[in-house]
Amino acid sequence: MVSSIIILHARDNVAVARQSIGPGDWLEPDRLRASEPVPRGHKVAIQRIAAGETVRKYGQVIGTATQDIEPGQHVHTERLEMRDFALAHEFCVDAEPAALLPEAERATFQGFLRADGRVGTRNYIAVISSVNCSATVCRAVADHFNNKGGLANHPTVDGVIALTHGGGCAINIKTEGYLYLTRTLAGYATSPNVNGVLMIGLGCETNQIPAFMQARGLAEGPLLRTMTIQETGGTRKTIAAAIEAINSMLDTVGAAVRTTQPASALVLALECGGSDGYSGISANPALGHAADLLVRHGGTAVLAETPEIYGAEHLLTRRAATPAVAEKLLARIDWWRDYATRNDAELNNNPSHGNKAGGLTTILEKSLGAVAKSPHSQLEAVYEYAEPITAHGFVFMDTPGYDPAAVTGQVAGGCTIICFTTGRGSTSGFKPAPCIKIATNTPMFQRMADDMDIDCGGIVDGTDSIEAAGRRIFARILAIASGEPSLSEQLDYGDNEFVPWQIGAVM
Amino acid sequence: MVSSIIILHARDNVAVARQSIGPGDWLEPDRLRASEPVPRGHKVAIQRIAAGETVRKYGQVIGTATQDIEPGQHVHTERLEMRDFALAHEFCVDAEPAALLPEAERATFQGFLRADGRVGTRNYIAVISSVNCSATVCRAVADHFNNKGGLANHPTVDGVIALTHGGGCAINIKTEGYLYLTRTLAGYATSPNVNGVLMIGLGCETNQIPAFMQARGLAEGPLLRTMTIQETGGTRKTIAAAIEAINSMLDTVGAAVRTTQPASALVLALECGGSDGYSGISANPALGHAADLLVRHGGTAVLAETPEIYGAEHLLTRRAATPAVAEKLLARIDWWRDYATRNDAELNNNPSHGNKAGGLTTILEKSLGAVAKSPHSQLEAVYEYAEPITAHGFVFMDTPGYDPAAVTGQVAGGCTIICFTTGRGSTSGFKPAPCIKIATNTPMFQRMADDMDIDCGGIVDGTDSIEAAGRRIFARILAIASGEPSLSEQLDYGDNEFVPWQIGAVM
Ligand SMILES: [Ca+2]
Ligand SMILES: [Ca+2]
Ligand SMILES: [Ca+2]
Ligand SMILES: [Ca+2]
Ligand SMILES: [Ca+2]
Repeated sequence: MVSSIIILHARDNVAVARQSIGPGDWLEPDRLRASEPVPRGHKVAIQRIAAGETVRKYGQVIGTATQDIEPGQHVHTERLEMRDFALAHEFCVDAEPAALLPEAERATFQGFLRADGRVGTRNYIAVISSVNCSATVCRAVADHFNNKGGLANHPTVDGVIALTHGGGCAINIKTEGYLYLTRTLAGYATSPNVNGVLMIGLGCETNQIPAFMQARGLAEGPLLRTMTIQETGGTRKTIAAAIEAINSMLDTVGAAVRTTQPASALVLALECGGSDGYSGISANPALGHAADLLVRHGGTAVLAETPEIYGAEHLLTRRAATPAVAEKLLARIDWWRDYATRNDAELNNNPSHGNKAGGLTTILEKSLGAVAKSPHSQLEAVYEYAEPITAHGFVFMDTPGYDPAAVTGQVAGGCTIICFTTGRGSTSGFKPAPCIKIATNTPMFQRMADDMDIDCGGIVDGTDSIEAAGRRIFARILAIASGEPSLSEQLDYGDNEFVPWQIGAVM
Repeated sequence: MVSSIIILHARDNVAVARQSIGPGDWLEPDRLRASEPVPRGHKVAIQRIAAGETVRKYGQVIGTATQDIEPGQHVHTERLEMRDFALAHEFCVDAEPAALLPEAERATFQGFLRADGRVGTRNYIAVISSVNCSATVCRAVADHFNNKGGLANHPTVDGVIALTHGGGCAINIKTEGYLYLTRTLAGYATSPNVNGVLMIGLGCETNQIPAFMQARGLAEGPLLRTMTIQETGGTRKTIAAAIEAINSMLDTVGAAVRTTQPASALVLALECGGSDGYSGISANPALGHAADLLVRHGGTAVLAETPEIYGAEHLLTRRAATPAVAEKLLARIDWWRDYATRNDAELNNNPSHGNKAGGLTTILEKSLGAVAKSPHSQLEAVYEYAEPITAHGFVFMDTPGYDPAAVTGQVAGGCTIICFTTGRGSTSGFKPAPCIKIATNTPMFQRMADDMDIDCGGIVDGTDSIEAAGRRIFARILAIASGEPSLSEQLDYGDNEFVPWQIGAVM
């Protein structure tokens, strides 16, 4: 018989109801019955929790019992509240180093070892626009290779991506906004999944290519070329020169071969978009388990989307490997408060009325539903948007929650593969990194079968477990990192989702 | 013999040196000699200007003489300064109604008369993404029609444009940023150059299509369809359904025919990008003359790019048709001050050191170089970004100076044709509106001959006049409005320059 509850973590003293539970219904066969109604998705106590004791879900504290709670009782706003226990100065107290597997037991995949020691999962050439004004030229160049036979003799090149965007001019170069843009462009130019780069400018833009190259420590070479439309003499001449420049790279780029590489070289972007009430109990915990496995094999998993962890940052600072990591996270939270204030935006991750009706009680619990897709080990590093990721294990990057801008930052930071959980059905992809779509519920998985790689709905239905789904996701990460196309790659997503996070004024 | 100076307006008491002038050189053959050196691009007095009198260039006041100036003397920082003469309360004092031509003498063009009485210059179908997440689907749909034969039997349809962008989610719908985005999307959906619309969403985005439609007063019909990827069941099904939806529009859209229409129906976007030292003395004044002609024929010319007129707004408020128009302009200037402050950006249109070396003395003079591309008649209306343009004559729209965002706002407001002056060589285009490129100098025109429609360099060289070039531009406006393709259309620009001005926070 399928259990009527989901226990999200072995340390939890509450579980989540898979479906509506009535008084007297068995929670665990022959062991525990519900003593009162528990709506679907709501919490029920599976241990005795005395008044003043902490309530744990996801293995983490989500609040404090306001009265004695007996096993089988419904745990919600009347019995649970958030108290000021998670103080900023308690840095690192919950940090647990990753339980690394012995080297001999670690997984491998087939990847492209690059000169800098990093390992790519794809072998792309990128045509990067310095400014919107060169976007059409960049796309015409990519089109020549992708759709007009330009790669016919080079099957080992995965494609030519045009990385175009709406910015690059009329921006103050002393601002954070310009730093974010240029760090993003440089991050893609140096991605392990990109093996050749042509950067094309208009010529008169604020984002001058030579200054950009110098500021980001990039130098021209056979596999990193630049040109401007104005210097080259207009659109047609630039497209011709660009095709010639890329043609000159094709033999070298195409000569790259996949070799057996350790899973520790993988840098996984964790993302959720189009969340639903199941995200926090099926796909996210399953991805968290897969991320645990990746980290135990020595790899890196990158949580992001700062607005979605807002209000629970103290749980992450408690898990920080060092006080400096915790402080960097809190600095980003402060930045967000200021950003929101300056822009009349609201930074509020408190459970909404609808969230509460769905069973979420506290801001910690809501944020933990987003954090659930990350590893359980200590937080090794915090990165600003599009900063190069160098640490291994569980790391965090400051990004908005907005999917394309978040993933663009992660890929710019060096992520070579993406796992994207979704309840409503997000379909996007993000060249040059393959993206694996993980559905939170089976009806959506079936309705959008062309787009969804993995179904975690069985966790809700009781036919699957978080651990089993996590192992399936991890296996899929290795397979897709090794070259198998994800569904969004088969659908040719990824040419329109390069969205550098734009902050600051457009003048 | 070619005159060594350019007189920009009959009311001016200074002229601009075409080339370096030495003491004793003739300024006007047999009439006026230079009494001292005047560098190229600098001003020279052509009348006596007493200390305290105003100095006029572009027919406008650019400052006050600080000493008596004799004809033939160099007029720059030592003899000219800006004083507080242009006060905000002097609204409307310089307003001159347009000198409309008699109806019988007015020009016509071949355009598409739409049901609402407006007239299109092109006959497009638009696939509009509500959010970045549907961009790839929108582009795949457009590709089917533009590049895979989907329009084979419909030669009278100019194309299917995918209007995709980086926004649409993680934005507060109560903010100006959301208003600007939705006004822009609605403006393109209702453009006279767009005859059929399919709006595609993902489904879970902030910018919900039904709410958007209601807020913007749009209703579904045979030529305005909507769908979401999530409701339609994923990427492949949505592309198929979208192609079917557009196929159902093709006969109706393709049945539109060009008929003789008055030039008064034209709404011209004025834009400059990649300016150089010649912009203010050749292409901009020539375009200003063409805009004068358009306005005299009853048409509308839309100046934009608020940061470029900053500091000279009082010259425009003096030309305002009504105090309300002047007040609306000043309100936008106040908005910009606040926007710049909030974003640590600098709003400073003062002549730079380089500008001064080039001969520009005051902020008024610099701004007037940008204003020079607009008509000389009174300012009839001021519009916020992407607001529907309803007035005729000379109007202003608040946009950034950044070309793609500026033109996107103008086209959203209803502009059906664009004249774009450039000194460095901007190459972009903006479907669904044709864009005419006007070069400020002949060397660039020749170097970028594939991209530049019109050369105004002869004004600098003395082989052409502002009036003659203006008449050529006006003739080209009528020809291109009637269906002749501009060079940027021949190069298929315009699929990547739809850049709604993004202001506010991305969360
Ligand atoms: Ca999310
Ligand atoms: Ca997200
Ligand atoms: Ca056609
Ligand atoms: Ca300009
Ligand atoms: Ca501009």
